[in-house]
Amino acid sequence: MTHERLERQVGFILEVDKLKEVFRQTLCTQSRRAENDAEHSWHLCLAAIVLAEHANEPRLDVLRVLKMLIIHDLVEIDAGDTFAYDTARMAGQHEREARAADRVFGLLPADQCASFRALWDEFEEQATPEAKFAAAIDRFQPVLLNCGTEGAAWKRHGVTADRVRARNAPIAEGSAALWDEAARRISQAVDAGHLGAAP
Amino acid sequence: MTHERLERQVGFILEVDKLKEVFRQTLCTQSRRAENDAEHSWHLCLAAIVLAEHANEPRLDVLRVLKMLIIHDLVEIDAGDTFAYDTARMAGQHEREARAADRVFGLLPADQCASFRALWDEFEEQATPEAKFAAAIDRFQPVLLNCGTEGAAWKRHGVTADRVRARNAPIAEGSAALWDEAARRISQAVDAGHLGAAP
Repeated sequence: MTHERLERQVGFILEVDKLKEVFRQTLCTQSRRAENDAEHSWHLCLAAIVLAEHANEPRLDVLRVLKMLIIHDLVEIDAGDTFAYDTARMAGQHEREARAADRVFGLLPADQCASFRALWDEFEEQATPEAKFAAAIDRFQPVLLNCGTEGAAWKRHGVTADRVRARNAPIAEGSAALWDEAARRISQAVDAGHLGAAP
Repeated sequence: MTHERLERQVGFILEVDKLKEVFRQTLCTQSRRAENDAEHSWHLCLAAIVLAEHANEPRLDVLRVLKMLIIHDLVEIDAGDTFAYDTARMAGQHEREARAADRVFGLLPADQCASFRALWDEFEEQATPEAKFAAAIDRFQPVLLNCGTEGAAWKRHGVTADRVRARNAPIAEGSAALWDEAARRISQAVDAGHLGAAP
């Protein structure tokens, strides 16, 4: 083990401190300030270990799910957050993020750069049960925070229930149980006047 | 699987959103604002997967390390953050936090309450290689952030190098390599005038 290897690893850990300054559209339930990507990533990890039993895949590799959730937003250090309902900005999203992945993961030693990039690619490609469950959690948590803030982010952007349902239906690919729960809460939000029923 | 079980789990996930409002003494390197416990916990998870190869234990259970890091600060929702150099406040810390653990983990279904509490107890007792490595990362990351902010939190509280070394020497129990690196950076901080050499 060379000292240069550890220096690269520490450099990466300090660089990704920037994730704490990338803000999302979703609000925290207590202070109602915008959530940042770092605390969002923690909240997903927490939700994943609590909810893993609801995955469609009974033999889920939870360690790989957690690794994906820990690193899935690092590309936003360069590429910024893309709001889930901003269709114009979503157009070039993957290319922006792939360039960011090259730079950010490139700070690591070559073997770790390759393994982190493989995890990020797996998350993006959505082909494995672990990637599908990680993405389900990444959609389920903002639904909970929106419901916990009287639909604050939905209202601010004028998003209606049809779009929220279309955006979140892929939760079912990772967990049918969590999509049932999300759909129930979305309907409750409509009934409570926290989410518009139609455009 | 009853619906009541999922409701309890979701209630817990929403309750721990409060961790995003518990602020630490350490500053983020970019904005120089206080770091909160949620983003701190994420940063530890990230550091753990990057640095696991430096653990003294060659067959580390990384999943258990991550689970401990994800939940280790949840007790601070009720007990508040205790600054590592506040010896007066550290006196009653474990009792305050144990009461908080009863309440916060008690929101979960009984089996998960027991398994989360066991993880927190394991972290507190510092008897396993996983607990020692998790605690090593929990000490190593604030050293990095202090060094990355010209010793901002150390200066604010008038902490000197002898206390920083005494506080962080237990890193060696989880990782001799990371303690060498921390000690080297602490000495560099003294040389650069970012950390007082003596009381």
